[in-house]
Amino acid sequence: MSVFTMVTEAELSRWLEDYAIGSLVALKGIAAGIENTNYFVTTTRGRFVLTLFEKLTEAELPFYLNLMAHLAKHGIPCPAPIASKSDALLSRLNGKPATLVSCLPGATVLAPAAQHCAVIGSVLADMHLAGRTYEGRLENPRGRAWWHETAPKVTPFLSPALQALLDSELAYQASLDTAGLPRGPIHADLFRDNALWDSEGAPAAPRLGGVIDFYFAGIDCWLFDVAVTVNDWCVHADGEIVAARAEALLGAYAGRRAFSAAERQAWPAMMRAAALRFWLSRLHDFYLPRPGELTHAHDPEHFRRVLECRRRACIALG
Amino acid sequence: MSVFTMVTEAELSRWLEDYAIGSLVALKGIAAGIENTNYFVTTTRGRFVLTLFEKLTEAELPFYLNLMAHLAKHGIPCPAPIASKSDALLSRLNGKPATLVSCLPGATVLAPAAQHCAVIGSVLADMHLAGRTYEGRLENPRGRAWWHETAPKVTPFLSPALQALLDSELAYQASLDTAGLPRGPIHADLFRDNALWDSEGAPAAPRLGGVIDFYFAGIDCWLFDVAVTVNDWCVHADGEIVAARAEALLGAYAGRRAFSAAERQAWPAMMRAAALRFWLSRLHDFYLPRPGELTHAHDPEHFRRVLECRRRACIALG
Repeated sequence: MSVFTMVTEAELSRWLEDYAIGSLVALKGIAAGIENTNYFVTTTRGRFVLTLFEKLTEAELPFYLNLMAHLAKHGIPCPAPIASKSDALLSRLNGKPATLVSCLPGATVLAPAAQHCAVIGSVLADMHLAGRTYEGRLENPRGRAWWHETAPKVTPFLSPALQALLDSELAYQASLDTAGLPRGPIHADLFRDNALWDSEGAPAAPRLGGVIDFYFAGIDCWLFDVAVTVNDWCVHADGEIVAARAEALLGAYAGRRAFSAAERQAWPAMMRAAALRFWLSRLHDFYLPRPGELTHAHDPEHFRRVLECRRRACIALG
Repeated sequence: MSVFTMVTEAELSRWLEDYAIGSLVALKGIAAGIENTNYFVTTTRGRFVLTLFEKLTEAELPFYLNLMAHLAKHGIPCPAPIASKSDALLSRLNGKPATLVSCLPGATVLAPAAQHCAVIGSVLADMHLAGRTYEGRLENPRGRAWWHETAPKVTPFLSPALQALLDSELAYQASLDTAGLPRGPIHADLFRDNALWDSEGAPAAPRLGGVIDFYFAGIDCWLFDVAVTVNDWCVHADGEIVAARAEALLGAYAGRRAFSAAERQAWPAMMRAAALRFWLSRLHDFYLPRPGELTHAHDPEHFRRVLECRRRACIALG
């Protein structure tokens, strides 16, 4: 259960007086999520999600909230932050930065078909295109600088073979020039558990309710975002690519935005970069959990396998 | 059928390349509406409404589109204009100003119960409160100035008795001082056919899909908006007020925003003003239809009866 900060109905009713969304009907904690406290809020007007931020600060949050508002305004199915009567997307509740967003329909699909992957590829490209006019600036907080800062912290916990793997991959990535790749706001964490699917859609034409959890977003290469997504949606448990799913995702992406020659060339390296980023963060969360943190840490081994697969072989951008 | 400007699927597909909402699946004309051309647009991402404006111009439209975007951002259930990749809410298609908005669920309810009226009262108050931070400025285009401009045009068609009624009401309204009433953006046309209801809601708790058609909006007294709404949602066919529905609407409105003393005092006169405005516009559309206009004109008699009822008696603001 991921409710770290308790909110009572009385507290929320008072807080909602600064919003134009009707009056409170029901309040219910949401179990998913390990970074923030989330509640379903039902008012006389409909359903919303309340998030209290446990780590992100008032200085960091505008980038994320304004990005979600920007994408929602462009028709991207994602949570739209609700502005208060005083026109703020961010407020405080029980001592925490807090925001209210629209509630998207649907549930996650953990065993996606090629059709799901095609929808994800298409919406990812549209997110990138819609993000071009977004003016917020925040370098990907889990980008290259973070890798080099984090590697020395986890190295002491690794076997010599894994230390060598990490060193080798960091050196390889450092040797690459990504300056020619198109960049912009990226989701950077579009895993299967961050997409909701409307169960009313026919199996052959799955309906995306929306993409959630933009709190790892930042400015980086679009291609890195594509690689992160493929590395989750299109892999076997052993880390190998499921070709039909990858082709569906990449084909649908390219149908909305064609890859450049530089992107085609960078793709194999970018797939390795995306695997490295999650291997590193999972090593970090596994060996260096924050004090008091619930032990939700994922096994780092999965992304070690993904990385090794990407180093051995690659698929083309189609 | 209210499709005045034809759009083919090929034309729309090309136009949609400037949007990040997937690719076109289906295009279907919408019969309702007499001012604009409307289509349902289904893309791989979902359903939208395309509007081509037949009369409103590029200079007038930003007030309406930005107002809808502002209200949607505040959680008011209304169509949200979709921004293009180049960040515009307004574009051109086949020679007309055109916009794409989100498609709201539901259908109109022409015989509302008190419960529907309560929901409408609540959302109307929230619209007023959310509109306080809206910066667009456009005086109600069907406000006092327009009444005095329009009356001489329709007077020649009226019997002496009706001429006297119109003169008397205009003189009465001109004698009133509304300067002390709170003002802001108002919908100004929140009739039953401009609200969509989700059929999934239980009869005792109707679910509002949203409020549509903001193209008569403008800056005016909030109380005028309340009166326009009560005069449609809470009347018998003879123009008399249905007390239970009016009490539900006004009570729910006051539950979200309390009426001021000045508003309570002005209420009977404002109900007359709201009846006058629609009597005048219906007289105008009936006797002076624009060339080539389809004959959708409503019978002006209904609002003449409403006006006479409001002159005879009034209900309090509760």
